[in-house]
Order: sequence, then C-alpha cells, then structure tokens
Amino acid sequence: MSATDPVALTQDLIRCPSVTPEEGGALTLLASHLSAAGFTCIRVDRGGVCNLFARWGEKGHDRSFGFNGHTDVVPVGDPASWSHDPFSGIETDGQIWGRGATDMKSGVAAFAAAAIDFVTDTPPDGALILAVTGDEEGPSIDGTRALLDWMEAEGERMSACLVGEPTCPETFGEMIKIGRRGSLTAHLTVRGTQGHSAYPHRALNPLPAMARLIDRLSSRRLDEGTDHFDPSTLAPVTIDTGNPATNVIPAEARASVNIRFNDLHTGASLVDWVETVAAEIDVEFGTATEVTARISGESFLTPPGPLSDLVTKAVEAETGVTPALSTTGGTSDARFVKDHCPVVEFGLVGQTMHQVDERVATEDIRRLKAVYARILRDFFA
Amino acid sequence: MSATDPVALTQDLIRCPSVTPEEGGALTLLASHLSAAGFTCIRVDRGGVCNLFARWGEKGHDRSFGFNGHTDVVPVGDPASWSHDPFSGIETDGQIWGRGATDMKSGVAAFAAAAIDFVTDTPPDGALILAVTGDEEGPSIDGTRALLDWMEAEGERMSACLVGEPTCPETFGEMIKIGRRGSLTAHLTVRGTQGHSAYPHRALNPLPAMARLIDRLSSRRLDEGTDHFDPSTLAPVTIDTGNPATNVIPAEARASVNIRFNDLHTGASLVDWVETVAAEIDVEFGTATEVTARISGESFLTPPGPLSDLVTKAVEAETGVTPALSTTGGTSDARFVKDHCPVVEFGLVGQTMHQVDERVATEDIRRLKAVYARILRDFFA
Repeated sequence: MSATDPVALTQDLIRCPSVTPEEGGALTLLASHLSAAGFTCIRVDRGGVCNLFARWGEKGHDRSFGFNGHTDVVPVGDPASWSHDPFSGIETDGQIWGRGATDMKSGVAAFAAAAIDFVTDTPPDGALILAVTGDEEGPSIDGTRALLDWMEAEGERMSACLVGEPTCPETFGEMIKIGRRGSLTAHLTVRGTQGHSAYPHRALNPLPAMARLIDRLSSRRLDEGTDHFDPSTLAPVTIDTGNPATNVIPAEARASVNIRFNDLHTGASLVDWVETVAAEIDVEFGTATEVTARISGESFLTPPGPLSDLVTKAVEAETGVTPALSTTGGTSDARFVKDHCPVVEFGLVGQTMHQVDERVATEDIRRLKAVYARILRDFFA
Repeated sequence: MSATDPVALTQDLIRCPSVTPEEGGALTLLASHLSAAGFTCIRVDRGGVCNLFARWGEKGHDRSFGFNGHTDVVPVGDPASWSHDPFSGIETDGQIWGRGATDMKSGVAAFAAAAIDFVTDTPPDGALILAVTGDEEGPSIDGTRALLDWMEAEGERMSACLVGEPTCPETFGEMIKIGRRGSLTAHLTVRGTQGHSAYPHRALNPLPAMARLIDRLSSRRLDEGTDHFDPSTLAPVTIDTGNPATNVIPAEARASVNIRFNDLHTGASLVDWVETVAAEIDVEFGTATEVTARISGESFLTPPGPLSDLVTKAVEAETGVTPALSTTGGTSDARFVKDHCPVVEFGLVGQTMHQVDERVATEDIRRLKAVYARILRDFFA
C-alpha cells in the first residue's frame, strides 16, 4: 500500500515562495508528483496567474470527484518577527512552521497525497480531479474562475467538489461549510453644494443627508436568518468628508457599507434596495446620491444531502467528532465552484492563518489526509 | 479747517506689508499721525502681536468715543495673479488697489483722519480713543483683547465704540451691525470596538451611532429667530473615519458640527445639549462618545438705541440711504468690545475683501470719513 507523506509535501510546498500571485514553483512541484501517479496535468494560466488542472481517469466521467485549493499565500510581513524563516517549512515540536502551513499548503498536500495513494492502490471506476489555483489570496479573477471557464470549454466536469480550506474554528473535525453568505460593498457619494457654515441656507449640506442615509440603512433588519444561514447583516465601514475647515460646508461626502447576505437576497436585490433608500433621501434633502456597488459573491448553499453526508461520515469515522454544517465566515473559491457542481468545504483549524508564526501540527495534516482518503473510498464505493 | 486726506493715508498703510501677525510699519505710521495731532499713543504689544492705543482728551472721561479696527491683513496668495502689486496702494480709475484696501486699512484711515480733523478743528469736551490691533485676521487672542485688558487695568474707558469693519453687502450705507450670532464648533468622537465586517455582532460599529447622532443634531430646529437675529443654525462640517478596508468595522469615527446661535442660547447651553444628545446615542448603541467644544464667540446685541440712532442718522445724512440694523455675518472684534461698552459696526462694502485685486473707490473712503466725522460731531454735540 502506497503512503505518500503529506507532511513532507507540505514542507516542500512551504519552501516554494509562492506569495500571491507568484507561482514560486509550488504548482510545478505538485504537477510532478501528480504526473508520476498517472494524472494528466495541464497548466491553465490566465492574466499572469498560474493554475493547475490535474485529472486521473476518464474526461467527463459522471463519477468525477474534485478537490479545489490554492498554493498562493499572503505576504509574510516582517520576516524578523517570525520564530522561524517563514519559507523554511521547518518541523519542531510536532509542528510545521511557515507561511501557508495552515492556509492552505497542508490542505493541498493532504488531498494530493490522498488522491495519489487512492488511484495507485485502488484505481476507481470514475475520475479524480484536482483544480489548484495560484490566485485565491489575490483578486481571484484569473484563479479558480479561470480553471472553471477552461473546464467548461474543454468538457471537463466534476460531479462533486470539496474545497480544502481551513474550516474548523478550534477543534479539528468540528465544522463543514456547506455554503456561504454573499458579500457586497456599496460606495455612496452624497453631493450637495459647498458654502459657508454661517449661511447654511445658501449651501446644500450633504452631511445631514448622509447621516440619515446611513442611519436608515443600518436600522433596517434585513431578515431573521434561514434554516442554514444566520441573519443578513449590514455594516457601514467608513464615512469620509476630509473637510478641515469648520467654517465651510463641504460639497460632498462618501461612505461605504458592506452587506453579508443569505439566500433570501441576491446582490442585485440589495443594490436595488440601497439605491431606493438613497433616492428617498435625495427627495427629502434635495441631494444627489451616487451608488456604486461591488458584489464580491452571491450567497450559495449546497443543501444537506449526499455530499455533506459523505464528508460528515468520513470526519466522524476519522476524528470521532460530528461536524456542524455551517455557512458562516468569509468568502472562498467555493463561491465559483457552486455554479459547476455541489461543493462543500472541509479542512484544518485556521487559527494561525494569515498571522506571524503560521504553523500546523503534523498529526493534523495526517488526519486530514485520512479524512480525504475515506471520502474518496466512500464516494467511489 | 483741517483736511487730513484718508485716501493718501489708506495708500500709505497699504504700502506697509502688515500680513498678520506682522506689524509692517502700519501702527507706527498711524501713531506718528495721531501723535502729531495731540493724541497720546501707547503700544500695547502682547504675545508677539503689536497693538496701538491712542487717546485724545482726558483719561476715563465719561464722554469717550472709541474707534476699533485692525491694520493686519490676510496673505495675498500668488502676487502674480494680482493686476497690481498688492502692496503698491496704486490709484487707477478712481480705485485704490492692494491687500487691505477694503479690510480694513481704508476704514482705519477714515476714522483716523476724521478723528484728527475733529480734535484739531473743534476740540471736544470728552475723550476720543482709537484702539487698533495687529491681530484681527489671526488668532485674535493678543489683539483687541489685549487692548481691552490693558485699558481695564489702566482705567481707560470708552462710553461707546464703533468698529470700522466693512459691513455693507452691496451698497455703501445700507447696513449697520448691532450684534453678531455666536459661533461654536463641537468635535465628536464616537468610539466602539473594531471587528470584521462579516461578524458585526462581535464588534461595536461606531458608524450607525455617529449617523444617528448627526441626524438627530441636524434635525433639531434650534429656534425661530428673534427680533434682531436670524434663527440659529447647526451645520455638520465633516464626518471622517479613514478606514480603507471594506471588511473591517472601524473602532472610531470623528465629526465636527458648527453652530451659529442667537441670543436665545449661550455657548455653554448648546454644548450641554450636544453632550445630552451624545449621551442618549451612547445609551441606544452602547458606544462611548467624546465631545470637545470650542466656543469662538457668544452672541451679543447692542439693542437699537442711542448709539445705533447716532450712526443711522449720520449714514442717512451723508449717503441718503437708511441703513438696516443687522446681526448677520461672521465674527468680528466687536465680540470682545461688547463686554466693555455699547458697540456697533459700520464700514464699507466688503465685496473684494480677502480676494485677489482687493480694491476700494477713493470716493467711498472720503464718504466713510464724512460719516465718521458726522458721528463725532453728533456724539459730542
């Protein structure tokens, strides 16, 4: 029985300085291991970003299991503040240290090792796909999206996909993510007419309008949550004027509000709502308010069913912990994969991700590989 | 009969480069003219600012008429954008050009010329005082206030005072100022707890609280105005956060509101009100709001009576225009003088003050001197 070591592979990947959007040798290293095990490896690079598509088995097979992840990492900050060189991948006290140790070179190493061993030991009737990007920590425009666009064009498909991002808040095994809230940011510019603060009737001050607009948006309870989602939330994140003169009424004010929304809304329906409130305010105050919105991702849900059952069972068997099915947290590339096939996320505890001294227990990497291996066995059983 | 030329004196004063707080030779020039006419001239300098006190007649006389004004000027900006050297005092087409032509070297020249001629031709039974500062355009801490402090200490007094600032919006003679609204600026800092915008329940966002605070302050109608004052007004002038990250809830937000208030309020009563509203908001939101206020000046009024009648009659006689008694406009040093004696303001049309190509018609300087001369004759009659 093969036993690809996910710890050594994690260390080798950490030693590739793949600070987003640099490839840093990480995808090349991964491709060499996968090719050796019989995977067809294709680089799907776009817009200066490197991505790797790897498939074992028949293209377009209707039993195709996919793993998605990324090898790019966030910057290390000041290397001097780390206890160990952040690109050393050094092991001390049962931990592997370095940028990407948790997010998510260990996850990539674990699913690559599980996949290699699985196709080597028990070649399945089906296909196994790894879609690994070098742009998840950056703009995410030419990363997993590029892989999915290319797969669509080429007739490549996954029938289910697992994203290997860290998902557990504190204890390994405690959480599977089955969806995410959507996120959008609306940028508001309220325009009036500049003037002297001694003569407010000769000016049109945008700030009272801005204040009421933000108050009205903030006061609205968007919903009460749904079976699988927390209530949607709106957070104003900044209001700015930049007027240093206390005797001048400014001509305009700017603000941004961030909305995290569940499946009772779409990005477009919420932008409509913000525009409607802004138009009401403009009628009340005579101002002219511009709304520009950026929808980072729509909400999505893979409802509890075969895929989440599969992952839950594997986690329970390997860890003894029954994972919660959650839709909390920020965005991930699952927001792109969900348009392709059912997708869930399961991975390590993410406590040190993006921090100085990012590290991971070697034991957790091995347990993660074991969970992924069991998922593959059960999927193809 | 003497005839001190107020136009030549205006030109000479403009040629003194007395950009605030520089004395520039202006007060020295003025003192030499006044001394020659029998005035006792005393320099009352404080905090690096030069001021001139000049008295003709008996110290502490109960019929003492005072003029107040300033010889400092605001900066010229780019001299190249002026049609004439801003310190040339050149006369073309019946106009004197230069910084201070309107605000207010012409006013100082007009009252000095009127005073010199008056004491020379018809020495009155009383005293005539000129209190001229070199710090009206700057912080105004060591200017007219220093003169009044010194006068108080020395037993010097005025029984009535005229400030020679420009007071007429468009036509010479149309407006006398008998008071001013007060002005204060309240700086508000709302503090919460920073957090991730995906988890607003774990943070305490100061922006909804700030928005409602500004809305509540802006929505309050402070009063309906009084017999001599417009309604008080409140203008938020800036709201700032400076948070560039749309996924971060900021820890604090800042704002400033400027209040122009009539004699139904005091600065302290309004600061109390702002603090009360801020405390209500803190109870509603759980925030901690800090209010720091700067009261630039209290409102004041010299109610229509002997002094405004005296000035009105002189303006009507010399110009044929019946002046309005107004309390509009920004602050002036009358806000300090009002604690010493009844004070009104009358001067030129102020249209070009603080602008490039500041200028004044020679005819207006002569008419202003004539008004001031008639005021003196009538006061001492």
